[in-house]
Amino acid sequence: MKIKFKNANVLDKNFDVLENQDLIVEGNRIKKIQNTVKDDNATYDRVIDCDGNYLIPGIKNAHTHNAMVFLRSLSDDLPLGEWLTKYCFPNEAKLTYEDIYYFTILGIMENLSSGVVGSMDMYLDLHAMADASLKTGFRVCICDTIQKFNKIISPEEYFIELNNYKGDNGNLVKYVYGMHAEYTNTEEIIKMLSDLVHKYKVPFFVHNSETKKEVDECKERWGGLTPTQVFEKFGLYDFGGGGYHSIYLDDKDMEIYKKHDIIAVTCPGSNVKLASGIAPILKYKDYGIKVAIGTDGPASNNAIDMFREMYLTTTLQKVSNSDPAVLNAKEILNMVMINGAKCIGHSDGDVIDEGKLADIVMIDVHKPNMQPLNTFVNNLVYSASKTNVKLTMVDGKILYEDGKYFINEDENYIYKKCNELLKNLLNR
Amino acid sequence: MKIKFKNANVLDKNFDVLENQDLIVEGNRIKKIQNTVKDDNATYDRVIDCDGNYLIPGIKNAHTHNAMVFLRSLSDDLPLGEWLTKYCFPNEAKLTYEDIYYFTILGIMENLSSGVVGSMDMYLDLHAMADASLKTGFRVCICDTIQKFNKIISPEEYFIELNNYKGDNGNLVKYVYGMHAEYTNTEEIIKMLSDLVHKYKVPFFVHNSETKKEVDECKERWGGLTPTQVFEKFGLYDFGGGGYHSIYLDDKDMEIYKKHDIIAVTCPGSNVKLASGIAPILKYKDYGIKVAIGTDGPASNNAIDMFREMYLTTTLQKVSNSDPAVLNAKEILNMVMINGAKCIGHSDGDVIDEGKLADIVMIDVHKPNMQPLNTFVNNLVYSASKTNVKLTMVDGKILYEDGKYFINEDENYIYKKCNELLKNLLNR
Repeated sequence: MKIKFKNANVLDKNFDVLENQDLIVEGNRIKKIQNTVKDDNATYDRVIDCDGNYLIPGIKNAHTHNAMVFLRSLSDDLPLGEWLTKYCFPNEAKLTYEDIYYFTILGIMENLSSGVVGSMDMYLDLHAMADASLKTGFRVCICDTIQKFNKIISPEEYFIELNNYKGDNGNLVKYVYGMHAEYTNTEEIIKMLSDLVHKYKVPFFVHNSETKKEVDECKERWGGLTPTQVFEKFGLYDFGGGGYHSIYLDDKDMEIYKKHDIIAVTCPGSNVKLASGIAPILKYKDYGIKVAIGTDGPASNNAIDMFREMYLTTTLQKVSNSDPAVLNAKEILNMVMINGAKCIGHSDGDVIDEGKLADIVMIDVHKPNMQPLNTFVNNLVYSASKTNVKLTMVDGKILYEDGKYFINEDENYIYKKCNELLKNLLNR
Repeated sequence: MKIKFKNANVLDKNFDVLENQDLIVEGNRIKKIQNTVKDDNATYDRVIDCDGNYLIPGIKNAHTHNAMVFLRSLSDDLPLGEWLTKYCFPNEAKLTYEDIYYFTILGIMENLSSGVVGSMDMYLDLHAMADASLKTGFRVCICDTIQKFNKIISPEEYFIELNNYKGDNGNLVKYVYGMHAEYTNTEEIIKMLSDLVHKYKVPFFVHNSETKKEVDECKERWGGLTPTQVFEKFGLYDFGGGGYHSIYLDDKDMEIYKKHDIIAVTCPGSNVKLASGIAPILKYKDYGIKVAIGTDGPASNNAIDMFREMYLTTTLQKVSNSDPAVLNAKEILNMVMINGAKCIGHSDGDVIDEGKLADIVMIDVHKPNMQPLNTFVNNLVYSASKTNVKLTMVDGKILYEDGKYFINEDENYIYKKCNELLKNLLNR
């Protein structure tokens, strides 16, 4: 497929705007970006007139549990313990492959409507997640969620199988070693994972320091060591990786993050809704720690809306540091595009440039919230919403356009199916 | 006009869902709500099949400066003083009637796309604001913004003229006494306004305790009195009203708010972006103080997006009180619907019921972020966004539907005009 976007404004690799551009996609790559050519005699499968709309790099959702859409708004405004033990765990225990496959597709649709081209997804039944990705054409980096309560299926087999899943060869599906959290695992599991991380020299991702309680209890168990310090002690972070949430890091933890280039994946929507806290992003910046942004699961958020997350990431820093000047729009874009791409293992899809992956979103500025046309990147971070996502292209294919999904599944069938599956699940 | 919505789920006056309803609008009122009738022989100007979508009361934006769209994203991430003195004030000084008229229309469009049926708008050139309201059909409650730096046009004349503007008789346009803030006014102005408030026995609205500095400096000027205490001392709050922002109220202030039924109008988006602080909404709740929600102006927010504001209002309380169980979805709906209606002077448009004003929004649940169909009100507050606003009806007329505006102005003309006016303004 050869697709030409014409009359576009393009956000370049420095997040500056190039006006009046043609952008040509061939296969799954950006072939050419050039000033608009009036008389172009080349042949394309499709020419899309952007009419002054903006092409931006696809947004990456660096932490989610997509299939948790099934728990969205089932119960809210509860104490954390009650919510987890009464609503989440008992229902999650009943999930089947079919449940997770369809719920994941629903989550993927929501990601696409938010301009997301790929997510780092941590959930159960990794084959269902991988199959949903291959079916829809959406990128997924599956992060394993090993925990002592579940049967542990060999992560090495997953690593080998899922990183070349059904011949996909990492184009859409990737797998990284990960575990649920320190408090849900044993020293034996930690050592087993560390051996694998070292054998293959790969990064490691984990929920880390989401709540103060989690850190305090870890210190009791491990003679004063925080989760970050435990992970480092056993070498889990020797080849990089990330910590989801990363709210309660102390200075020593931040030095470890910096030393091993661990990405702090912040999930501000979930963190404020669950009252977990506000991650100290400015301190990470002082340390030179990379930050990426995720929605967390739709059970706690309750949406998959990266515009809301971008807004929250910067404004929560402004208000908690009493300084409106901190964390500007380009720094936020760097998080969701460049650092997000590193998380999901697709750094060749981080920005728009010739030769990069064709992971592209068209932002419709013909909406009141983007007018008048002052500073585009500020509008994108501070004013844009899902209404401005006109098109989402993943790996050179248009999966979402003008509110419609092109994911090899009918959207109304997915809604119907998910409601039926949920009803059956709750009645089981 | 007689319009029938069929196959609707209706949010009733208690914010509970009535399933499979027909809702009939006649003129500007809700005539009837009944279980879906299969064979209805009545004649309608239009029958709208809701296909299971939800009809909710229109959202009210209780504090905004709509015309400030022109400053949106012109400059962000600056210290407050620099932003105000370098970008806001000098440009605002150049505004003409035409500028404010068109910028207000752009702001109205953005409100409509967010399911807002009326706003309390505080800005310059009140005739331009009123004309924009009459032209588009959108409700406005104009709050005067008297300050000592501007020429003071007789507020009594405005009160009389604007409350029956061009024969509108308050159907769309209302005017309430207000002033910019304590720190921008004199005792003489305060007394003059108090006389008018008493003469007509009407409420009074004002920016109140938005920043700690504002309160501290007021106390220095007034022998220890806070802005709230100054307003009470002069009787400005004797007939109710509201305080925009209301972040730094002390216990005595809260008692005054309770005593005079003053509404605390919270603007969380603007407050976090400008790093002003987080309003103590839970304390207001303890005192029994009513809360409404506004976007503030799009220069500081930078969007007019009441879904973002609803989410922020509850989640900021959860995180700042370390309790995920506080402020549930229905309490938030109460703020934006019932208390908001009181602010804008249209309590007969607060909820959906027979005889109420036909200020109605249709929420499209055929989108991934509203699926599966668990608890609708939770989805509305925690997951919905502008993408779910399928239709906004104000005073019985559909002003927004499926992304199109029916406001007696072409939307693309408004964008073009606003960009031209802005360019001219910046070059003057």
